[in-house]
Amino acid sequence: MSVLAVGTVAFDRIETPTGMRDRALGGSAMYVTMAARYACEDVRLVAVIGNDFPEKYTEIMRSRGIDLDGLELRSDGLTFAWGGRYHEDLNTRDTLYTDLNVLADFKPKLPSSYKDARIICLGNLHPDVQQSVMDQVSKPEMVLCDTMNYWIDKTPDALRNVLARVDCLVINDSETRELSGCSNLVRAAGKIRDMGPEVLIIKKGEHGALLFAGENIFSVPAFPLTDIADPTGAGDAFMGGLAGYLSGCRDLDLDALKSALVYGSAVASFTVEKFGPEGLYDLTTSEIEKRVDSFRDLTTIPISTLSGY
Amino acid sequence: MSVLAVGTVAFDRIETPTGMRDRALGGSAMYVTMAARYACEDVRLVAVIGNDFPEKYTEIMRSRGIDLDGLELRSDGLTFAWGGRYHEDLNTRDTLYTDLNVLADFKPKLPSSYKDARIICLGNLHPDVQQSVMDQVSKPEMVLCDTMNYWIDKTPDALRNVLARVDCLVINDSETRELSGCSNLVRAAGKIRDMGPEVLIIKKGEHGALLFAGENIFSVPAFPLTDIADPTGAGDAFMGGLAGYLSGCRDLDLDALKSALVYGSAVASFTVEKFGPEGLYDLTTSEIEKRVDSFRDLTTIPISTLSGY
Repeated sequence: MSVLAVGTVAFDRIETPTGMRDRALGGSAMYVTMAARYACEDVRLVAVIGNDFPEKYTEIMRSRGIDLDGLELRSDGLTFAWGGRYHEDLNTRDTLYTDLNVLADFKPKLPSSYKDARIICLGNLHPDVQQSVMDQVSKPEMVLCDTMNYWIDKTPDALRNVLARVDCLVINDSETRELSGCSNLVRAAGKIRDMGPEVLIIKKGEHGALLFAGENIFSVPAFPLTDIADPTGAGDAFMGGLAGYLSGCRDLDLDALKSALVYGSAVASFTVEKFGPEGLYDLTTSEIEKRVDSFRDLTTIPISTLSGY
Repeated sequence: MSVLAVGTVAFDRIETPTGMRDRALGGSAMYVTMAARYACEDVRLVAVIGNDFPEKYTEIMRSRGIDLDGLELRSDGLTFAWGGRYHEDLNTRDTLYTDLNVLADFKPKLPSSYKDARIICLGNLHPDVQQSVMDQVSKPEMVLCDTMNYWIDKTPDALRNVLARVDCLVINDSETRELSGCSNLVRAAGKIRDMGPEVLIIKKGEHGALLFAGENIFSVPAFPLTDIADPTGAGDAFMGGLAGYLSGCRDLDLDALKSALVYGSAVASFTVEKFGPEGLYDLTTSEIEKRVDSFRDLTTIPISTLSGY
């Protein structure tokens, strides 16, 4: 019943057609843990911050039950900062800047209390950093891993070594095509799973997500929303919801994975309705349950199909 | 139990990364009717061909039960011809040429035997031509309508007059955004339905399709295929399967629409597995039923979701 997330805690500058936030609370580990906590009581964060990180942001996470023993404070540097500007349709964005700061030489050291975590989420970091985290945990039941085009391109060998060890890779469709060198997603999934991960989850933004596990493929749409404020963190919140849900499942079987995909999609849909992580601050269990039910309405094929005519 | 499809019958030149066909049998009305016939015994085609159209192509349609009384032969002209070249990922294509030929002044005249059709499919033609078809039918239970960016841009007023009369618009996501002037698909759907169509179906290619009906949204993924030979006609085959299925439903209610969307997606998935309309030549009912079942496996959310953990 525990989730460990390693990744970033950051300052985000977010510009969308409808609004702007500067030095907002951001970072993959923050989004993953803030989403996972709705389905998991024991959520542990591993990341690094600098001397400019405000106590109010730490408090936002701590007050919501995130274990911050693994949040390293570096007094000699500044917090990782990222800025992005979304285009009109919110599906694409330009990076304004990426200031690595204390992230540049981040070497995560896990508190001993963290090492027995059941589900591990390896955020999008250098593959060698992801490796070092796997070296420090004892026997996780499942390791989920994110990556990005940058590592696929720049550190292919290190990434291959990571892929050989992880159970489930969670990446987007363009990363899937780039990593596999294959434009057909079904073939691409086969090639990537041959590299190691038994399970592949492909994030497709407004088009939802695909799960490849065993011989099975499962598709979940994105929840259709009238108002999208800010897509930042949706993919990380999806992974967090997914990991949180899995942490509570007796068996990590196909049904657990499918359910986790829906749960993660539901939590991610709340994330994009507000700026930054604000949509993840104070959800209720009943709100999430209602949205999961809405996914059923959205996808359930009538039992009468092929018999009613 | 009848479907009437008006549209094109054409020569297609198709270039994909894996193959090429020249002067292949093509056209929207051909794809719609060839797909609809699997769920409907009375399928009627309205289109025009020129003096160069070979008997073997007419025979392909006739031998599969398509009523060709509405296929006008113009001895003074050539058949509509289109050429397209697909990009590597098969999701985008360049048009090589569009020779309207006899299509340029096509004025469909419906045989009197056609006028009582239950479901009408208005293919992507000039809105005034679509109007003239609606003027010639007596009391269809449902009029489905396709259009494209060209008509949205060039003949907006004529298109508005069509939209005011049709029951269901079937267009792709970029057309949805252009017609509504709105990038959010849910809002866009609302705006378009305010123009007339009670039902909107948005085709999203490899990402499936969305149905908006009443207060409901229904999502169906595209069937994940290892081998896609040629996407040509997938959207028309989808509409044909949809229309064929609806023609056999007692009530055209929400469940009928959802089932029709799945059935249309199943038939469309067979279409893209071969070049041109070849995938639609000789399907069996059992093949289609199996694929519909596969859509259930692909989309069914486990009943244990939110209770199993």
